[in-house]
Amino acid sequence: MPKKSLKPTSAVLLTPVVLVSCQDEGGKPNIITLAWVGVANSDPAMISIAIRPERHSYAIIKRTGEFAANLPTTAILKETDFCGVVSGSKLDKFSTTQLTPMPAEKIKAPLIKECPVNLECRVKQVIALGSHDLFLGEVVAVQMDTEIQDEKGRIDIGKTKLFTFCAGAMEYWSLGERIGRFGFTKGKLN
Amino acid sequence: MPKKSLKPTSAVLLTPVVLVSCQDEGGKPNIITLAWVGVANSDPAMISIAIRPERHSYAIIKRTGEFAANLPTTAILKETDFCGVVSGSKLDKFSTTQLTPMPAEKIKAPLIKECPVNLECRVKQVIALGSHDLFLGEVVAVQMDTEIQDEKGRIDIGKTKLFTFCAGAMEYWSLGERIGRFGFTKGKLN
Repeated sequence: MPKKSLKPTSAVLLTPVVLVSCQDEGGKPNIITLAWVGVANSDPAMISIAIRPERHSYAIIKRTGEFAANLPTTAILKETDFCGVVSGSKLDKFSTTQLTPMPAEKIKAPLIKECPVNLECRVKQVIALGSHDLFLGEVVAVQMDTEIQDEKGRIDIGKTKLFTFCAGAMEYWSLGERIGRFGFTKGKLN
Repeated sequence: MPKKSLKPTSAVLLTPVVLVSCQDEGGKPNIITLAWVGVANSDPAMISIAIRPERHSYAIIKRTGEFAANLPTTAILKETDFCGVVSGSKLDKFSTTQLTPMPAEKIKAPLIKECPVNLECRVKQVIALGSHDLFLGEVVAVQMDTEIQDEKGRIDIGKTKLFTFCAGAMEYWSLGERIGRFGFTKGKLN
């Protein structure tokens, strides 16, 4: 298969899609949809989120040092796209989208009830990289809908309707099927 | 839907799965499968990969300051799982898996031909976070199979067989269908 060299881009990975909620010091919440998100560390549990300094949520999260990463399902795809396109400086995204704010356990920012998984995070580092600043957040609490948990309390992906994003294609994609379990080869190829 | 508070974890995100290739100063290559991977910045293009210091590839990438992130398809799911389970200190993963090394354009480490997208990266920062170190890599070149490119040279996800991972469930999942295009709401909910 022939290859072609492209202009350097980071936008070809399949990424998570996350609704990041935050709240300013006056108690006004906001939501921003982000895809430049990844797992950064296991112990302590940390994730990274990259935000452009010109976005409305950027200054709120930088000042308050807190955010929640809420995982949307296909049921709120429209709201997810909307919160990535419109600025919170112009409207209240909770009331406009009718997404339901829910009190967090460890942070002041509200969680989004319609998202089956909510990660409450405290910012540990902010690294300026150019177009974006990378926020490294420690996960200080996790809320998960009981109905997507298996008998051991682990997430049951087959019961969620999480989806993924590819910025290179500018497309949201649903999940297909479970194709393997981590470690299924047991370190053997045959 | 009732929620339940879980022990803090970062492992519930849907993550990319990436075969990271590197090469030591003696010319010996290695491959490590990683899921703690994300987009960190758009301009310059940057990605983050988190590696445990005890992994064989860790010291090679830290010393050489280079790696490639190769995106696997379901056709090499077995090899992908294998490279995440077995240590390169014990065997040559290219010859064992029969994955094909391919010269990179800007770095010394070989790319993996069977992966339709290859990101050549130079390490800009390494941040110790606890269990893992987070490597921030600038994407200095990208190779892509011509047959997964659309007429504008963008990635055509429908023609790839990329897959995603959820560490919380310990499962690899294929993609389902295209459910929307970024910006489809045009900033309107109705």
